[in-house]
Amino acid sequence: MRKPQPFPHAVAIVGVGMSKFGAFPDKSSRDLFVEAFRELRATVDKGFDPAVIESLYLGNFSSDLFEGQGHMAPIMADAVGLCPVPAMRLEDACASGGVALRQGVLAVASGMQDVVLVGGAERMTKLPTAQVTDTLGAAADTLFEIPAGFTFPGFYAAIATAYMHRYGMTPEHLMNVAIKNHENGALNPKAQFGVTIPDWMQGRIAAAVKKGKPAPTWRDQWDFLHDNAANPMVAWPLRLFDCSPVTDGAACVLLVSGERAREFTDNPVYIIGAGQASDAALHDRADLTTLSAARGAAAQAYEQAGVRASDIRIAEVHDCFTIAEIIASEDLGFFAPGTGYRAAEDGMTARDGARPINTSGGLKSKGHPVGASGVGQAIEVFKQMRGEAGARQVAGDVPLAVTHNVGATGSTCVVHVYERR
Amino acid sequence: MRKPQPFPHAVAIVGVGMSKFGAFPDKSSRDLFVEAFRELRATVDKGFDPAVIESLYLGNFSSDLFEGQGHMAPIMADAVGLCPVPAMRLEDACASGGVALRQGVLAVASGMQDVVLVGGAERMTKLPTAQVTDTLGAAADTLFEIPAGFTFPGFYAAIATAYMHRYGMTPEHLMNVAIKNHENGALNPKAQFGVTIPDWMQGRIAAAVKKGKPAPTWRDQWDFLHDNAANPMVAWPLRLFDCSPVTDGAACVLLVSGERAREFTDNPVYIIGAGQASDAALHDRADLTTLSAARGAAAQAYEQAGVRASDIRIAEVHDCFTIAEIIASEDLGFFAPGTGYRAAEDGMTARDGARPINTSGGLKSKGHPVGASGVGQAIEVFKQMRGEAGARQVAGDVPLAVTHNVGATGSTCVVHVYERR
Repeated sequence: MRKPQPFPHAVAIVGVGMSKFGAFPDKSSRDLFVEAFRELRATVDKGFDPAVIESLYLGNFSSDLFEGQGHMAPIMADAVGLCPVPAMRLEDACASGGVALRQGVLAVASGMQDVVLVGGAERMTKLPTAQVTDTLGAAADTLFEIPAGFTFPGFYAAIATAYMHRYGMTPEHLMNVAIKNHENGALNPKAQFGVTIPDWMQGRIAAAVKKGKPAPTWRDQWDFLHDNAANPMVAWPLRLFDCSPVTDGAACVLLVSGERAREFTDNPVYIIGAGQASDAALHDRADLTTLSAARGAAAQAYEQAGVRASDIRIAEVHDCFTIAEIIASEDLGFFAPGTGYRAAEDGMTARDGARPINTSGGLKSKGHPVGASGVGQAIEVFKQMRGEAGARQVAGDVPLAVTHNVGATGSTCVVHVYERR
Repeated sequence: MRKPQPFPHAVAIVGVGMSKFGAFPDKSSRDLFVEAFRELRATVDKGFDPAVIESLYLGNFSSDLFEGQGHMAPIMADAVGLCPVPAMRLEDACASGGVALRQGVLAVASGMQDVVLVGGAERMTKLPTAQVTDTLGAAADTLFEIPAGFTFPGFYAAIATAYMHRYGMTPEHLMNVAIKNHENGALNPKAQFGVTIPDWMQGRIAAAVKKGKPAPTWRDQWDFLHDNAANPMVAWPLRLFDCSPVTDGAACVLLVSGERAREFTDNPVYIIGAGQASDAALHDRADLTTLSAARGAAAQAYEQAGVRASDIRIAEVHDCFTIAEIIASEDLGFFAPGTGYRAAEDGMTARDGARPINTSGGLKSKGHPVGASGVGQAIEVFKQMRGEAGARQVAGDVPLAVTHNVGATGSTCVVHVYERR
């Protein structure tokens, strides 16, 4: 394979739009996508005419199974008035959004196109939970893995167990990730759990207020997080609060060639690296404690961008389960293998830490509408780099950032590197 | 939108592979894809090492609904030993294969990649027919069209009715397409109906032989084709033999940059134009007798290639129903609007006609494993242009050819132009 090269043409994100992430079973994914696109249209700094868009790359995992609707790309294109431009759906399970983003990036980076819309959408909550679990299971290997009794919490539980066995992590360490991401998500108006505090926690807050005590925060909930009723075991060692939720949502970003970016905004964010790799399904891997596709995608993206992991200021990573964020923080080269859980414990990945991760709340708290998640990550990076992340804005400049989007247990991984010039 | 430009880098097809198309309910689509890839590996003229492949672009409509398996791209990549290269699924209903081909073409044409595998696969026949009909229905607009009672034969029946009303075509004219394509398919060893002669026709042949008469051919079957038992009405005016079958199959082509093509073969076929367009679903169109996405995609592809419709020697078009081939032959500019049915009647689209269409047998006789069909079209063109189409080879050189792949009723259309230098 060719060595990754810098892009021949600069690729800028000049606008973003996102629906609220949450449970909207009465909306279709096209409703959610229209909501996202309307926000994009309304917020591009200098305005723009959608007629300049040359293609739609849409990330979606399985509108087929979730909504009984395939061929979503032209439907979305029509819903936002883009026909007759080419519209195509990219699917790589929960990495669909990131894969769509990468195809859009390559279209612009190559000089083939100047203005591309990348979208992602998934409407998941209308189905009964068991059917959602089965549908997500279709992202695994249904010949070899699902018949063995696995579902996704089980896969990641196996990963967590292997990691604990090798590195001495305990289940309690995982809660640092959940707490941090819920703290961040509570500051994100678009997050699924941004304002939704679980009933058991609301009860605790009310009780404290009644007694004239300060209202407890997420960080005070350790005892509750060990409570089998409030935080039941899903697949040992993973409890409910180790798992990202089922979510409806859509997101889109407008990619423009560097030469034309200033027509849209004086404040573009550039994508300077886009790596993607594939791997065998989990049952056929030598090591469960790292995702080789993530390491491969990161190596490509860093080399293309001409940066090192240590240069990166913030990252949005694929925390579908708490263990996934810990492994991601190692696979991206931020922390040595086996030390990511200590970094989380030490607050290094918190908003005020040395390497903030998932300032948006991550999939864990912002929500995980699977085909939209990879695009949503780019939106958080765009906002943080432009200083527009509101209450969750990190301090200081963000010159370089990374997004990391995983399909299934790492059969696909996509990593993008972003630069603010 | 930018005016289509010639590709900055030449794109060559240097090898192809295809499973048998037919009913193989005991095979998974990965089995079929492995079969196709093995043929490709074994038949590239100068051989090649699969390690040179940089990406897999996979066309697949809905392995989700047909097989309960999503995330097919890395599964296919793993099955043929391609991991860790980026592997992604493209979906635009029955145009998925053509859309995957176009993304592969753009990756090479832009200079971003040198060697790309494009595949397509679908395993359809294991489901009960009613479920296949529902699954295919997911390619239409399930909010506005399916609740109105439509299925795909109904959509194309509406199209045929509108065309008959405007241009005076009769249902009998459609049979010229079916007969021609079955004649061609009978010469294609990979075709679903290549050797399978329907029972009713076998009975007729046996009876003739018994009486010492010459065995009747497809062209002698006019009376049978009007027989409500042998050829029942599906959706007026479309009968069974107006409809393409339900098929299992896979196909793949190896795309290489022009500079490197001679490493693989001295006999490459170049892709010099790739157009794609989207359109509203059928319920929201002003004219049912033409597909504007097909006209748009063809205009792009011709302009990019610097050719005119009259330059094209052969075409593989999307004959999911007989009426679709007639309209395709007009949308591609071969015949004026309203005259395609007469051209078919006059034999102009036969193998020995002025403009042979669907020498492979088309979707009608070769079969229509939806995600593979667009890639299968490229394979027929490759074989015809290299003079390797055996008994169905057209006479003389084939310097220019076209493929035309449609999603649903034309919400997506992809057109490629091929050149033999």
